[in-house]
Amino acid sequence: MIAKVIVTPKPVVNDPQGNTVKQGLASLGFREVSDVRVGKYIEVSLDAPSEHEARQRVEAMCQQLLANHVIEDFHFEIEHEGRHQR
Amino acid sequence: MIAKVIVTPKPVVNDPQGNTVKQGLASLGFREVSDVRVGKYIEVSLDAPSEHEARQRVEAMCQQLLANHVIEDFHFEIEHEGRHQR
Repeated sequence: MIAKVIVTPKPVVNDPQGNTVKQGLASLGFREVSDVRVGKYIEVSLDAPSEHEARQRVEAMCQQLLANHVIEDFHFEIEHEGRHQR
Repeated sequence: MIAKVIVTPKPVVNDPQGNTVKQGLASLGFREVSDVRVGKYIEVSLDAPSEHEARQRVEAMCQQLLANHVIEDFHFEIEHEGRHQR
């Protein structure tokens, strides 16, 4: 199975990387951009007996390593043999 | 509208950050993980008269700034007023 994890800065947290990208886009002429937020995308390939179990393990991975829960939110999808579930 | 952009290292490109995360997960006991790839997640809020136009602009942003086409792939979705299209 493959877990597709997205980690984003919480809305209240300052995002200097996003601001820099926004300025870069503006200087390239993309002035219609009002906001940019930059996060991480992490693809985890794992073996699990069921999707339910995979979901629990990936949740634990996020809490222990992949996301910093003080300043970041996360969500993920599990993909299994070409099937796609949210 | 909001464009949700995912930028990933191309499959043939070495991903040291992914390898480090994989080792970190293994040392925490997540030994069922066979591979980790780390990319970027970028949320761009923009004004556009239509989804078609938004799509063209975001494609241009990716090619000019958000992704390095030599080593990275990208894909994105446009969200519009709660609606969700791939």
